[in-house]
Amino acid sequence: MEKLNKVRLNEIDITDGFWAQRQKMNRETTVYAVWDRYEETGRIGAFDFDYVEGGEKPRPHFFWDSDVAKWMESAAYIIAKKPDPVLEARIETLIDKIEAHQDPNGYFNIYHTVIEPDNRFKDRDHHELYCLGHLIEAAVAYYNATGRDRMIRLLDKYVDYVIKVFVEERSTGFSSPGHEEIELALFKLFEVTGNEKYKDLAMFFLNERGRDEIPVANWSNAKYSQNHMPVRRQRTAEGHSVRANYLYAGMADAVRETGDPEMWEACKALFDDIYGHKMYITAGVGSTHHGEAFTTAYDLPNDTAYAETCAAIALALFAGRMANLEPDSRYADTVERAIYNGILSGISLDGRCFFYENPLEINLADRTRHASMRDEDRLPITERQLNFGCSCCPPNVTRLIADIGEYVCSYDAERIFIHQYMACSASLPGMQLDIDTAYPSKGEIRIELAGAKFKKLYLRIPGWCEAFTLSAPYVMKNGYAEVEIPSDMFALTLSLEMQVRFISADPRVRADAGKVAVTYGPLVYCIEKTDNDCILSDVRLYTGETPQISFDPYFDAPVITAKAAVTDETSVKALYMPLKDLKTRDITVRLIPYYGFANRGESDMRVWMRTVGKD
Amino acid sequence: MEKLNKVRLNEIDITDGFWAQRQKMNRETTVYAVWDRYEETGRIGAFDFDYVEGGEKPRPHFFWDSDVAKWMESAAYIIAKKPDPVLEARIETLIDKIEAHQDPNGYFNIYHTVIEPDNRFKDRDHHELYCLGHLIEAAVAYYNATGRDRMIRLLDKYVDYVIKVFVEERSTGFSSPGHEEIELALFKLFEVTGNEKYKDLAMFFLNERGRDEIPVANWSNAKYSQNHMPVRRQRTAEGHSVRANYLYAGMADAVRETGDPEMWEACKALFDDIYGHKMYITAGVGSTHHGEAFTTAYDLPNDTAYAETCAAIALALFAGRMANLEPDSRYADTVERAIYNGILSGISLDGRCFFYENPLEINLADRTRHASMRDEDRLPITERQLNFGCSCCPPNVTRLIADIGEYVCSYDAERIFIHQYMACSASLPGMQLDIDTAYPSKGEIRIELAGAKFKKLYLRIPGWCEAFTLSAPYVMKNGYAEVEIPSDMFALTLSLEMQVRFISADPRVRADAGKVAVTYGPLVYCIEKTDNDCILSDVRLYTGETPQISFDPYFDAPVITAKAAVTDETSVKALYMPLKDLKTRDITVRLIPYYGFANRGESDMRVWMRTVGKD
Repeated sequence: MEKLNKVRLNEIDITDGFWAQRQKMNRETTVYAVWDRYEETGRIGAFDFDYVEGGEKPRPHFFWDSDVAKWMESAAYIIAKKPDPVLEARIETLIDKIEAHQDPNGYFNIYHTVIEPDNRFKDRDHHELYCLGHLIEAAVAYYNATGRDRMIRLLDKYVDYVIKVFVEERSTGFSSPGHEEIELALFKLFEVTGNEKYKDLAMFFLNERGRDEIPVANWSNAKYSQNHMPVRRQRTAEGHSVRANYLYAGMADAVRETGDPEMWEACKALFDDIYGHKMYITAGVGSTHHGEAFTTAYDLPNDTAYAETCAAIALALFAGRMANLEPDSRYADTVERAIYNGILSGISLDGRCFFYENPLEINLADRTRHASMRDEDRLPITERQLNFGCSCCPPNVTRLIADIGEYVCSYDAERIFIHQYMACSASLPGMQLDIDTAYPSKGEIRIELAGAKFKKLYLRIPGWCEAFTLSAPYVMKNGYAEVEIPSDMFALTLSLEMQVRFISADPRVRADAGKVAVTYGPLVYCIEKTDNDCILSDVRLYTGETPQISFDPYFDAPVITAKAAVTDETSVKALYMPLKDLKTRDITVRLIPYYGFANRGESDMRVWMRTVGKD
Repeated sequence: MEKLNKVRLNEIDITDGFWAQRQKMNRETTVYAVWDRYEETGRIGAFDFDYVEGGEKPRPHFFWDSDVAKWMESAAYIIAKKPDPVLEARIETLIDKIEAHQDPNGYFNIYHTVIEPDNRFKDRDHHELYCLGHLIEAAVAYYNATGRDRMIRLLDKYVDYVIKVFVEERSTGFSSPGHEEIELALFKLFEVTGNEKYKDLAMFFLNERGRDEIPVANWSNAKYSQNHMPVRRQRTAEGHSVRANYLYAGMADAVRETGDPEMWEACKALFDDIYGHKMYITAGVGSTHHGEAFTTAYDLPNDTAYAETCAAIALALFAGRMANLEPDSRYADTVERAIYNGILSGISLDGRCFFYENPLEINLADRTRHASMRDEDRLPITERQLNFGCSCCPPNVTRLIADIGEYVCSYDAERIFIHQYMACSASLPGMQLDIDTAYPSKGEIRIELAGAKFKKLYLRIPGWCEAFTLSAPYVMKNGYAEVEIPSDMFALTLSLEMQVRFISADPRVRADAGKVAVTYGPLVYCIEKTDNDCILSDVRLYTGETPQISFDPYFDAPVITAKAAVTDETSVKALYMPLKDLKTRDITVRLIPYYGFANRGESDMRVWMRTVGKD
């Protein structure tokens, strides 16, 4: 186990290219759009604590605090890079309200003050600690952006209260949260303050988990909230996939801060289980809407995939932490798979609408199959929404995009690791790193590094890359090209060969049997009926022929044109007929980046496609 | 529209072969097993009308009458062919009880006498008319078997009461039944008695249907019970698939008895919709357990298929009637598809256990995918049961098998049609027909016909048959080979060439995309993990090579050995990897008749399989 330092947001600027565009939209459009939705729905107004039954204001939900806290965290990341008096004023006003309405004992939770004040810390599924965790993350982000620690001080008082009732008195109705989040938040607070009590409380919650088998809700069992056994013994990813990955991220923080070897073994096994058995090719996780949960190994249905945007983000949080504990490119590969696919699909190209679920296949006809029933099947929605009843995903995307720079690189005294390739400029202790690239559209990456003489540079060679050239000598180590840095002013060029790839899943993945996914660089592609007027399940790609690539400004990425075969309709004579009598005809199909699906109206869509010849 | 006379059960004996074996088992084992289950569960005892709340007897269900009635009908068919004093005594005792407990006004229904006497004919979904229909079918069968008309006379009184309250007074809570069945039963009663009032009442119920849009249950809409429009305007098969096909069978009877041209157009369109868009290759119908219903065209999922045994039987009832209204082999083809596949799969090889649902794919791993939930997905069961809570299917199979001879042939003054091939001997008016064959294991059929000189013989050439020889001159007409009968003592041999066939579905059937089903003669085959220790979704059949056939006495049918490819496990290195890096290896797979699945314990199973090369 190692302990690399990740680059801090205040040390790195995204300067150009794909992510600069995403950040611009995030800053100018999305963070405002999310605020507007939260204002319209009463989430902002709830901070006035003036809800009355039967009054005009909507009834606060028990995790609205966390929605707004994630918005505050996003806004803090944004103003850290570019001053914005509007966002800053909004954050300050929210902190004013927290200060005004915080209990004298430190407790703060809107729902459990205005609706159920007598049931504080009684219901394990009421997310008070989850809300506190997100408030802490916002406070740390705002402190890092502005140097102002008022929110940290307010929450410090709340944390003291939590320590009193959970640890000292043990007077609460449960001893570990139903929805994890506070663990990783407390480690952040420990890191920024150096105060051990935060770390100790985080460890308390980790250690309490799984000591009893109390489920969160009566329709679930203990696995749903990762409460089925002590965390150090857990080896398989189970239950609600956001909760699970937030927990695993907190466990990785615990490893980092304590070196706990049993916790480290658990983290590695849990990552391996996800990476090897339970992750969609988009890095979406959570195969079912029942409990928004992990299911069994290789169970990855495409049309009913839950793959919540937040879960892919949570997986990136976990994998990003793992990348700094062990130099193994699988971790940063997973972050990359998530940020270009299963996370980015959660936000529309115009930055205003969102997906909560991210299926890998849409068949619109399925929506009306229960023609004789009043209700339909529960299927993922097919149009991005401005907001959701449970609207955790939108501000989770905004904070991820605003904070994306922190995934780029990490370092210690002798080494610099570059995990993600984006045009950026980073001022690390004693070193200056500049990256210039049109990634992910192009594989050429120019890296300049000053002040790192005699250190070693580690460049991740992505798992998708079958060939590359590097303008300096290197040896491969755990998926990274290790380069000795010979000079103070050092520049090199990495060229990752990009080609259209046809990817198969493990044969145990029944949903993908006989099908391939198409990738180009880190991007996973899909076909939409919008572009392809045919039966998508009938499309068979010619995998022996090389598709055409062209840049499409609408998606800000390459699109793919490929040769395919479909059934010749004139040969179809009956519902069932001999295989030999069906004829095919060739067509050209257009594939778009998966993250861009459902931006041009509802459409059939699929990632996994049949092939001609070899299936 | 034509009007052929179907052979009557008392005119035909199944003499040997496949169906003689099924009838023997039915007579010696199944009819007794079903009785025992009905006795154990209180269905028989309920006819004593002595249920008291809190007493020892179980509470009768509102359609238990129909379960027992179908058993009576089955037993009547059995004693019609072979005396059985035990069965006969049981029927007589049941009739005694009906007589003893029938209301003075004629009404008879256990539930609405001992539980809810005040709610007679108030709840459209309480199946009183459905129960009456099955009692009528039993009464007619028993009369035909024994000449005794006591049960008919009892029910005649009930019918008079129904006419009074439904037609004359219009004092009931609904005007057409929620679950159809009485219509076709009344036509049977009309046919055997010649009394027009039965036909008129059947027409009344047909005419009333769809005049309002009252759904049966609040979770359904009017389509669920085929109540969405007047029956003559219906063009697509909708809703509960047993109810639908019972209705359509009744409509076909109405066409036969009235020649109604609008009804005939509706019947043809409804059959075309099922045959062309909504029928599994096994002749199972009803794609979803939600409402046990038809869904949309081409929506034929295999693993969640409902395909109730009763629905395939109901389809056979409908298609069998259509075959006598129009000489078009598609109707008898559909009967054949049902009786050898989707119906026969509903009963175990030992005749003791049953399936209610008949999926075309089982993946046992799916049963435990919701590892963090208390409940699992609703999926078809994987083991045949002795009985069901709703146990309509077992006696429906027994009556179908006992009565199978009635599907063999039909005739009018100038023509004899042979629809189904089984070893039998039929004494038709002025004619004697004898068929000798080992069908469906072998395609050779010897037919002897006496007393039919100068008539025309029509032999169905099954839709599955690509080549045949006939030892007499013929011309093809609507799927039948028309042969002029030159002599009083006429014999001919039909040889239907049987071969293993690889069948594709219409490309619009998404569930079967890239897959084939394997058939041999009328039998659909499947692979079970019991025989094939591999990942069934990974199996790819070599469709260019000729599989081996061998007779297996366990299944009383041929089994198939075929060459296939599977992924070479040693080439699998990750959850996602390039298609080109995956290697395959050849294996031999064993396919068994679909009707024999799940007889050797729970197992993964599938009908639709991938192919090598052409998919």
